[in-house]
Amino acid sequence: MAGNTIGKNFTLTSFGESHGVAIGGIVDGCPPNLKISAEDLQKDLDRRRPGSSRYTTARREDDKVEILSGVFEGRTTGTPIALLIHNTDARSQDYSDIKDNYRPSHADFVYDKKYGFRDYRGGGRASARETAIRVAAGAIAKKWLYERYKTQVRGYLSKLGDISIGKQFDWEEVNNNPFFSPDSSIIPTFEQKINQLKKDGDSIGATLTIVAENMPCGLGEPVFDRLDADIAKAMMSINAVKGVEIGKGMASSEDLGSQHRDIMTPDGFLSNNAGGILGGISNGQDIIVHIALKPTSSISQEVETINKKREKTTIKVKGRHDPCVGIRATPIAEAMLALTLMDHALRNRAQNYDLA
Amino acid sequence: MAGNTIGKNFTLTSFGESHGVAIGGIVDGCPPNLKISAEDLQKDLDRRRPGSSRYTTARREDDKVEILSGVFEGRTTGTPIALLIHNTDARSQDYSDIKDNYRPSHADFVYDKKYGFRDYRGGGRASARETAIRVAAGAIAKKWLYERYKTQVRGYLSKLGDISIGKQFDWEEVNNNPFFSPDSSIIPTFEQKINQLKKDGDSIGATLTIVAENMPCGLGEPVFDRLDADIAKAMMSINAVKGVEIGKGMASSEDLGSQHRDIMTPDGFLSNNAGGILGGISNGQDIIVHIALKPTSSISQEVETINKKREKTTIKVKGRHDPCVGIRATPIAEAMLALTLMDHALRNRAQNYDLA
Amino acid sequence: MAGNTIGKNFTLTSFGESHGVAIGGIVDGCPPNLKISAEDLQKDLDRRRPGSSRYTTARREDDKVEILSGVFEGRTTGTPIALLIHNTDARSQDYSDIKDNYRPSHADFVYDKKYGFRDYRGGGRASARETAIRVAAGAIAKKWLYERYKTQVRGYLSKLGDISIGKQFDWEEVNNNPFFSPDSSIIPTFEQKINQLKKDGDSIGATLTIVAENMPCGLGEPVFDRLDADIAKAMMSINAVKGVEIGKGMASSEDLGSQHRDIMTPDGFLSNNAGGILGGISNGQDIIVHIALKPTSSISQEVETINKKREKTTIKVKGRHDPCVGIRATPIAEAMLALTLMDHALRNRAQNYDLA
Amino acid sequence: MAGNTIGKNFTLTSFGESHGVAIGGIVDGCPPNLKISAEDLQKDLDRRRPGSSRYTTARREDDKVEILSGVFEGRTTGTPIALLIHNTDARSQDYSDIKDNYRPSHADFVYDKKYGFRDYRGGGRASARETAIRVAAGAIAKKWLYERYKTQVRGYLSKLGDISIGKQFDWEEVNNNPFFSPDSSIIPTFEQKINQLKKDGDSIGATLTIVAENMPCGLGEPVFDRLDADIAKAMMSINAVKGVEIGKGMASSEDLGSQHRDIMTPDGFLSNNAGGILGGISNGQDIIVHIALKPTSSISQEVETINKKREKTTIKVKGRHDPCVGIRATPIAEAMLALTLMDHALRNRAQNYDLA
Repeated sequence: MAGNTIGKNFTLTSFGESHGVAIGGIVDGCPPNLKISAEDLQKDLDRRRPGSSRYTTARREDDKVEILSGVFEGRTTGTPIALLIHNTDARSQDYSDIKDNYRPSHADFVYDKKYGFRDYRGGGRASARETAIRVAAGAIAKKWLYERYKTQVRGYLSKLGDISIGKQFDWEEVNNNPFFSPDSSIIPTFEQKINQLKKDGDSIGATLTIVAENMPCGLGEPVFDRLDADIAKAMMSINAVKGVEIGKGMASSEDLGSQHRDIMTPDGFLSNNAGGILGGISNGQDIIVHIALKPTSSISQEVETINKKREKTTIKVKGRHDPCVGIRATPIAEAMLALTLMDHALRNRAQNYDLA
Repeated sequence: MAGNTIGKNFTLTSFGESHGVAIGGIVDGCPPNLKISAEDLQKDLDRRRPGSSRYTTARREDDKVEILSGVFEGRTTGTPIALLIHNTDARSQDYSDIKDNYRPSHADFVYDKKYGFRDYRGGGRASARETAIRVAAGAIAKKWLYERYKTQVRGYLSKLGDISIGKQFDWEEVNNNPFFSPDSSIIPTFEQKINQLKKDGDSIGATLTIVAENMPCGLGEPVFDRLDADIAKAMMSINAVKGVEIGKGMASSEDLGSQHRDIMTPDGFLSNNAGGILGGISNGQDIIVHIALKPTSSISQEVETINKKREKTTIKVKGRHDPCVGIRATPIAEAMLALTLMDHALRNRAQNYDLA
Repeated sequence: MAGNTIGKNFTLTSFGESHGVAIGGIVDGCPPNLKISAEDLQKDLDRRRPGSSRYTTARREDDKVEILSGVFEGRTTGTPIALLIHNTDARSQDYSDIKDNYRPSHADFVYDKKYGFRDYRGGGRASARETAIRVAAGAIAKKWLYERYKTQVRGYLSKLGDISIGKQFDWEEVNNNPFFSPDSSIIPTFEQKINQLKKDGDSIGATLTIVAENMPCGLGEPVFDRLDADIAKAMMSINAVKGVEIGKGMASSEDLGSQHRDIMTPDGFLSNNAGGILGGISNGQDIIVHIALKPTSSISQEVETINKKREKTTIKVKGRHDPCVGIRATPIAEAMLALTLMDHALRNRAQNYDLA
Repeated sequence: MAGNTIGKNFTLTSFGESHGVAIGGIVDGCPPNLKISAEDLQKDLDRRRPGSSRYTTARREDDKVEILSGVFEGRTTGTPIALLIHNTDARSQDYSDIKDNYRPSHADFVYDKKYGFRDYRGGGRASARETAIRVAAGAIAKKWLYERYKTQVRGYLSKLGDISIGKQFDWEEVNNNPFFSPDSSIIPTFEQKINQLKKDGDSIGATLTIVAENMPCGLGEPVFDRLDADIAKAMMSINAVKGVEIGKGMASSEDLGSQHRDIMTPDGFLSNNAGGILGGISNGQDIIVHIALKPTSSISQEVETINKKREKTTIKVKGRHDPCVGIRATPIAEAMLALTLMDHALRNRAQNYDLA
């Protein structure tokens, strides 16, 4: 019941601090005989990696993942798959000044309150660095989902701050630019925005869209472990996420029943306001999820705050930070959706065979 | 692993179909010596009860809850608390026509696909009737939270369709009108809207806001069982919910870091964009949650659909339905927040004593 | 996390006190389309029922079980199955004297220490009465196991005190005598023993053997949720059980490796010292479990003890008790084995399909 | 729900194969501020280490454990504690002959049946090597239990085959001889026995006793997660264990109620047949557990068996094996008891504060 495990039949248990020896995790419950290699995981890790472009943090991490167990002769054995990533570029001195002063919108304060003290180096356990292992584990889930159902889990940046992507939509384009934008025409505007933020020492939020195509019907365990409920949890567990929407999301509240309902025909549904989930169970349509991420909390503008003794002070966060953490969250969100779908695929199989 | 239990140290396991013998649940892990009676639970059940006003379904249910175990001489014993509500007004004939035809936006289709067949009477397990037991269990959590921390969990309707409540805000008013509106001046507008929908045989969505005041600091188990993650799951597990926001929610994505961050002073935070949660842990500020509910799926307007044989047909849903299911979801959402907070209070106590 | 749920994919959550309104439970995760009725459950309940013979407690309980949900038109729907048994013969006055005085070998003392107070009527939650619901739930598992794999779970009394059953072994005989003895020739000796104990106001322990035949190979989740580990837990969770053995059990410690190992041939194993489990996984041979139950703690011989104030006193337990609780534990132990096997069958299916 | 995690509030998730890169685990839920170092863990690991005496396997492993996370400036932070042990002496060639032929009493056969194929090197995941990480994690639990309650968890060899230790009992002696015997006078007899077994190429079973002194009262979650039930599971999850007894164990079945019951006096209990647990809850007396381990399955005597194609063949297990695996299981059993007690201490605290 400790909080570092997610999933029921397919689980990821995660460990590691931003500037500790290493981060890693254990993937348990993976079906045997899945072809998997460190390279398969590295692809997504590289998409998330810091320092991959000038529009993200300058921190350099190789983020080379090792598989320590559970894979034999290139295939999963059904036993736990241990993943390990060593921390190579941990510059503690960048962070020593935050040992006693609390950074606003960061977890420094609550970790001290909850645990009595904390590993303050680079945010310790609260650092988004922890999500690297989610991406590695998610790559296993993505591969299994695709081989089993041809289900494909992909995401993109739908909004940078209040700038929405345009009409041009090309999945291929998503990995061709540092913004994970499916619309190439918007890139210059995004670049301009980020450059301005860097100049201002400020940051901005973002909205991501994650989609699962070729979905099997029947995944989800009512009434509490609904598929959408577990997706909401998985997404909200990502650093900086403040809102989760399924299908039409918040806007559904303004709809009339006569316009919102997705009409069924012998040839399928005529719309997908539901985002692929009815009554907590996948209906075979694409799963569509939108998440909102708050702006990076670490910015270089000095600000008033308090220290451990609850005394007034000011802080100016040094270190290397993304002007928009939302951008690199794309592969993380894909991973969380994939992990949730795979867990539910196995859960459904336990009770209902594998009907898909 | 089956999906009908929520919580880790404080759990609710739920059962029951809309038109079966009864619905009920088992609350496990409740600390002993809490004064509790059926009447305490009935208060919230009555707030949710169908037929409580002409603006909700005409279905009449006494929804009288019985406590079958776990309470002795008026106090909890620490053993499982069984809750039972008999179904008194189950008019199956109202629903017999939907045995073979799938209602759009309902779970009929996915239940058949997942389980092979279903209890079609009144939506069976997928009916929102199941949420009555969440409200009863939530009342236990509400009482414990208040006695232990003076934490108060309350909710209100913030939007009916696209109509927002006005500036007038009075918690007392919330339970004085059938809309759970804190603003009495908007009631006539709401009444007019609902009456128009009834005339049109249509329905509409709604947005609710749930707040927890006097929160202890330190609740939440990073990295996966973050408090906001578990709240998101609890809320998304409510029928018809399509979006969940914590604090500033989706709008956080448009903020600059310099404006979004909640500045800390010796006297407390200067704002609460975070909605009371940082790094997945409560920071002592009010927890603020917004949820969006889609319009009632059952409306009297005939619509094209398919039957079990996947043949084209039409359906006109009879029966008694709320023009806006969102309204009565207020006590349900309060219950889900209370259940989540109490579970996390006990989880935190297990690892970190009870520092609050 | 609370302790009243057992299983992972197939779960039983139990509630109820000996002299409360009712006892019951929720079975979750059962595959749909299993034909089941209250009568199917009643058969085993009647085998366990008190007052079924003069060799067991004189307490009379109809133990009529109701199915409140999860079964529609005679088949399971895949939703939670709620089971309810009302307490009809609760003579509290029989127990009022134990409100303040602790009965030796009973849970009175520890419940007061753990929870601060307790429902003292008839032992409250600690009463073996709670096991009735395990038997009802176990009957569902037994039926599913038989229909799915032809696996048959049965048990018998192998020893009453130090009196072992003889060579005569007939499964048919087990349900023909009040001792669940497969050997009819030993009955007179058992009757004599029980009658003597009643005269002496004393009680005695027993040893039971539970067997699962026609087992699928591959059930069990190393390394912690081994099949034998979960069986050991399930058995030790039965009131009065003090020892659990798999296969040759404790005696294995005296074996030489050369004699203990079960040799494999193309026609199968040549012996079954392992009791059907290797490395925590079923090997297709019969599962063989032995459990030892301590003598009934409630006997009419007066004894020294302490009261709530830790003062010296004496107690003479009135009420109606089995001279040997072990006898009626046979259907309970069968149920616990069946619940464990079914849970593992579903868990295995989640990861490895259903190879059996 | 995959099987490689044990515990609810205090959990160990384990990974690793005998001859893979490494074995390790993640300990989650540990309270913060516990002083812990790799050296603290190494002490128990060294007690278990192969090659520590000529009476155990000649395989040499340094078994040096690293702490990768969760400990900062010498104290636990409340975040996951990752433990890693690299495999240094993996001689795969010793085992290549068992790739296709099944060793009797080993898990080779069932792993192939369950998962389709297996890492056959040194028994892969089924090897007792995996237990090293349990010992490392158990050392954390032992330390916490002692600092919190002065609870001390220790074990010893009570029988080697059918040779019981004598009357001489000295806890200090246990770690002074390779047999974990508290009785030094029996050592020559044990040495003679082991030497004879080595000459015969045979092996033998053993019985261990594990004791927890200075126990807090109130640990255990009826009705399923009883303390004795979880102890039984933890013990039965150890390789080669075939029987578990609490207190008087199997022999309780031959007792009369009048002799078995532990009489309570103002000065405490007059006996401890219960082994420190009543109704599944610790009563403050010492927890006493006995476990029986089967003889080492790997012996050098050739034996008939089958291969993957189910064809008749013979096998003669090479490699370096303990003549009695039971001996080195002592620290493993201590670890499993400590892990279970700590988990229950935290679980009890969640619901009932920390009364002890």
